[in-house]
Amino acid sequence: MSTGKINVSVENIFPLIKKFLYSDHEIFLRELVSNATDATLKLKHLTGIGEANVEYGTPQIEVKIDKEGKKLHIIDQGLGMTAEEVEKYINQVAFSGAEEFLEKYKDSAKDAGIIGHFGLGFYSAFMVAEKVEIITKSYKDEPAAHWTCDGSPEFTLVPHDKTERGTEIILHIAEDSTEFLEEHRIGELLRKYNKFMPIPIKFGTRKEALPKPEDAGDDYKTEYIDVDNIINNPSPAWTKQPTDLKDEDYQNFYRELYPMQFEDPLFHIHLNVDYPFNLTGILYFPKMSQEVQMQKDKIQLYQNQVFVTDNVEGIVPEFLGMLRGVIDSPDIPLNVSRSYLQADGNVKKISNYITRKVSDKLKALFTENREDFEKKWNDIKIVLEYGMLTEPKFYEKAGDFVLYPTVNDTYYTLAELKEKLKDTHTDKNGKLVVLYTSHKEQQHSYIATAQEKGYQVLVMDSPIVSHLIQKLETDNENLTFARVDADHIDKLIQKEDTTPSKLSEEEQEKLKGILEHVIPKANYTLQLEAMDSTAAPFILTQPEFMRRMKEMSQTGGGMMGFGNFPEMYNVVVNTNADLATRLLETEGETQEKLIKQALDLAKIAQGLLKGEELTAFVKRSFEQLA
Amino acid sequence: MSTGKINVSVENIFPLIKKFLYSDHEIFLRELVSNATDATLKLKHLTGIGEANVEYGTPQIEVKIDKEGKKLHIIDQGLGMTAEEVEKYINQVAFSGAEEFLEKYKDSAKDAGIIGHFGLGFYSAFMVAEKVEIITKSYKDEPAAHWTCDGSPEFTLVPHDKTERGTEIILHIAEDSTEFLEEHRIGELLRKYNKFMPIPIKFGTRKEALPKPEDAGDDYKTEYIDVDNIINNPSPAWTKQPTDLKDEDYQNFYRELYPMQFEDPLFHIHLNVDYPFNLTGILYFPKMSQEVQMQKDKIQLYQNQVFVTDNVEGIVPEFLGMLRGVIDSPDIPLNVSRSYLQADGNVKKISNYITRKVSDKLKALFTENREDFEKKWNDIKIVLEYGMLTEPKFYEKAGDFVLYPTVNDTYYTLAELKEKLKDTHTDKNGKLVVLYTSHKEQQHSYIATAQEKGYQVLVMDSPIVSHLIQKLETDNENLTFARVDADHIDKLIQKEDTTPSKLSEEEQEKLKGILEHVIPKANYTLQLEAMDSTAAPFILTQPEFMRRMKEMSQTGGGMMGFGNFPEMYNVVVNTNADLATRLLETEGETQEKLIKQALDLAKIAQGLLKGEELTAFVKRSFEQLA
Repeated sequence: MSTGKINVSVENIFPLIKKFLYSDHEIFLRELVSNATDATLKLKHLTGIGEANVEYGTPQIEVKIDKEGKKLHIIDQGLGMTAEEVEKYINQVAFSGAEEFLEKYKDSAKDAGIIGHFGLGFYSAFMVAEKVEIITKSYKDEPAAHWTCDGSPEFTLVPHDKTERGTEIILHIAEDSTEFLEEHRIGELLRKYNKFMPIPIKFGTRKEALPKPEDAGDDYKTEYIDVDNIINNPSPAWTKQPTDLKDEDYQNFYRELYPMQFEDPLFHIHLNVDYPFNLTGILYFPKMSQEVQMQKDKIQLYQNQVFVTDNVEGIVPEFLGMLRGVIDSPDIPLNVSRSYLQADGNVKKISNYITRKVSDKLKALFTENREDFEKKWNDIKIVLEYGMLTEPKFYEKAGDFVLYPTVNDTYYTLAELKEKLKDTHTDKNGKLVVLYTSHKEQQHSYIATAQEKGYQVLVMDSPIVSHLIQKLETDNENLTFARVDADHIDKLIQKEDTTPSKLSEEEQEKLKGILEHVIPKANYTLQLEAMDSTAAPFILTQPEFMRRMKEMSQTGGGMMGFGNFPEMYNVVVNTNADLATRLLETEGETQEKLIKQALDLAKIAQGLLKGEELTAFVKRSFEQLA
Repeated sequence: MSTGKINVSVENIFPLIKKFLYSDHEIFLRELVSNATDATLKLKHLTGIGEANVEYGTPQIEVKIDKEGKKLHIIDQGLGMTAEEVEKYINQVAFSGAEEFLEKYKDSAKDAGIIGHFGLGFYSAFMVAEKVEIITKSYKDEPAAHWTCDGSPEFTLVPHDKTERGTEIILHIAEDSTEFLEEHRIGELLRKYNKFMPIPIKFGTRKEALPKPEDAGDDYKTEYIDVDNIINNPSPAWTKQPTDLKDEDYQNFYRELYPMQFEDPLFHIHLNVDYPFNLTGILYFPKMSQEVQMQKDKIQLYQNQVFVTDNVEGIVPEFLGMLRGVIDSPDIPLNVSRSYLQADGNVKKISNYITRKVSDKLKALFTENREDFEKKWNDIKIVLEYGMLTEPKFYEKAGDFVLYPTVNDTYYTLAELKEKLKDTHTDKNGKLVVLYTSHKEQQHSYIATAQEKGYQVLVMDSPIVSHLIQKLETDNENLTFARVDADHIDKLIQKEDTTPSKLSEEEQEKLKGILEHVIPKANYTLQLEAMDSTAAPFILTQPEFMRRMKEMSQTGGGMMGFGNFPEMYNVVVNTNADLATRLLETEGETQEKLIKQALDLAKIAQGLLKGEELTAFVKRSFEQLA
């Protein structure tokens, strides 16, 4: 038996790095700026606890492009390294400097926000550079060191005359990576990954106008000076206490996050917890349109102010995926697969915490200013309704703030709705029938009919509304929903007293025969009803159950197969209308014309008269005008 | 000055691997099965050239789950390793076995499809395993070796009594990766990455019915035996010659690729080139719906039959992103950023080659069976039209096969269209005016009017059609497009002879005054025209330029700002219609009612009468019936 140590052949560490990193070369900059930040924060910590006897000052990190020399410089004013430390942290690849640091200063470092991946990330520089130099001067009283490596395992390490504290990394950019010498590309990366890192990052300069001197004459020309262009905000809003922030600060931070968003968010939720996990962040409800679009501005995940990803699947409950904002938590494990993430207890707790904070905020908004909440309802309902369907914990709380608006813009909670409607909308079987419309304009004539009868009609027009209704019916005994065009109104809410028919049984039979002769059976089911004499003589209705199942099937879910059923309509003919009497009195061509015109009008009211039929109708109607 | 060798500290190679791989743990299986495949192909090659004096046979690779023992086995019958080779290829991490192999057998190995990443991928096993064993027996006459490593740098290497040739890798799955002990998960991964790898992969067994014996009685019960469950197809269609494949084979391969697709593809394009780059593959045109959906079944990229990605951005021209199929090319550099990929000369050539093959195929389909091509047109047009807009090389060729269908289902090429329409559709200024509709049903009355005049109307209903029309107008002198409802037909194609007006100038002025009194100026522009007396008395039109600019702006592109303009319509009143005369003869309420009813009818014909207005119209019309 033999044992031994695995020997990582250094000739091949670079192919290894390149192989595993191919899709994400750009993260080298994040890694190097993170290292620079760590080095600075470590110095801050050491000076803070009196271990480093130097002035911390106001250090910054500089990123500089030397296009002609094909070089990229990352310069910090952090604690620097001695030659011995370079040997230890750089030459011994994958020795994690931060880990050792944390080990040593465990307790005091915990709160200093120092992230532990120094060393590991440094070699990602070789993804884009053919040669890398480090010039570094420690805060300790030792000479600066100059390390050079061209990607082969051979390196050189010589003294350097650098006197300012800190580290400069120089990347000699490789031929296939010249994109990283472009100002716009580096600017883009810094804005993507480092926008909120805790140390100011300088990238180039910008002009700033000098104030006009008091004694300046009329011919004074504004003078400009070059000032450092700081590309990040080291103290983003989410790192502050909610009590220190005004509404305006939240709005401004939203603009910082999404400069291309012109509309203000509706409201925000500040997340801030440190036990049993550490999480800060701010979520925003943007104005939501009906169509769920390809979303570009997503929730961003940070760890200690370093951007990680905007894929928060598994961390944020799915229904909140449409929100915007940031979440910052060092407690989310990243080096695991998505499916493990979803099973992880800590992550589950985070997800539940976010759900609870969102419902609490919604409840507070509703309670504190109901009028304002109602105004925002249309813009947020899709998220809330989706949450009710997918997140049981959210559904439980939804009764407190989810609203049901009527066509007249009155907003009820479910409890209020039941109370308000119970006298008028309860049918003879004791069922409370809620009428709704999916489109105020298209179903206008049906809504008008219901309103004439003294009923209220809700607007329920989200794409997932059929699922929601199904759920509400299941969970609320004796509550049932019907779309206004599902039948004629006296059938939708059946009462004890029915309208008597003007026609005798015999006349009704005769009328039925006449109608069946003209109205195609394949497309319509004929239904004769004794309604008010003033009600429309013909209406087209679409039975609730079938339509709802079809809709559910089309938006995912519901019972299989319903999606492919054809659209079926009933023709409801009012036997008490004058037209019914007239039909019995006429015959032949006149009678047929009357029925066809009435059917056309019923179709127009339901938006179903189209193409050639519509053209013929319009032509006929124009002829009658002249 | 000091120089030295960078020392990769092996204690930390595992964190390094984990760190850089966090989002993609699952690829460990692809890497290990690839290694097993390589080992088998290498043996095939060596036996082929007489270097290995053993029987190649019909080797397979087995993947086996031991759920109780928390182990995953990957077993091959390839060339195996001696203890010395384990030392060299495994213990010296990142030493690329395949590279050395290729170096040695350079010329003969080139065609054997051996990919060079052995060794590199092996350590990805430690992403999911806390301990890894290798039991391997070389084809050479040497004892088998047993290597064990628990993720620390310490390993053990002892002899083993294995006698069959080949290598078995045993992963002791870690606590956080138990998903990889689930049959469905491993099955899913094998189907994702290894579905078309060149060596058969066995994963479990399945029951197969034995044939009924000839002498079996009536009470014979079918007997089953366990057979190997081979999860891959080692010889997928794209690796074969087009001449060896029938239409049916291409259809079957489509089903293999996309088992959830029930519809047949419309046609396929077999790609096959080896100079100046190596590329094989099969692309399919699926039936395309009008809405561009979230696409799940995308083109898959392989390298030597190993699945790499289904993100082919930059490799396949954007407009072909909606196609399905596979591309297999070892010549696409993967360890570079997307932006470098798009600038790479070789990749550009590949993209151009694909564009050319697609246009050639389309031209051939058109030429060989025009009738069939016309039938498929509606399902492919969106891709082709998008290609014309985005790919200049495709636009050049498009004239040969891009079609323009009329409402009567006659299909013209652009050249045919010009020839066919030039006599009737040329206006008095010598412009050829092409009429089109974006919706046959909604614009039916306008189409009917144009057809009555002897004009043809094209159906152009893609969402990007306004951009296409704009481009066609720019590139074809004296060609102009107008939607049928852009004006009244005699204005759309103006001829020398105009219809004389029945009304005197004075009467026209009077009529105008009457109309202006009732028709709201804010919404409509009034336009009096002398048309045929049989033409509609009122029509609503929407000027072409404004509407097109609005549409272009809404689908991306066009001039800024147009998207927000309100919809503007003209009311065109036919002064020769009887209604015009009647309006001059009436006054007061009757006159106003007539105008309102006529405007309502014009709105109905354009689909613009809605909500309360529509309800009132229907009610009024019902009253007139009874």
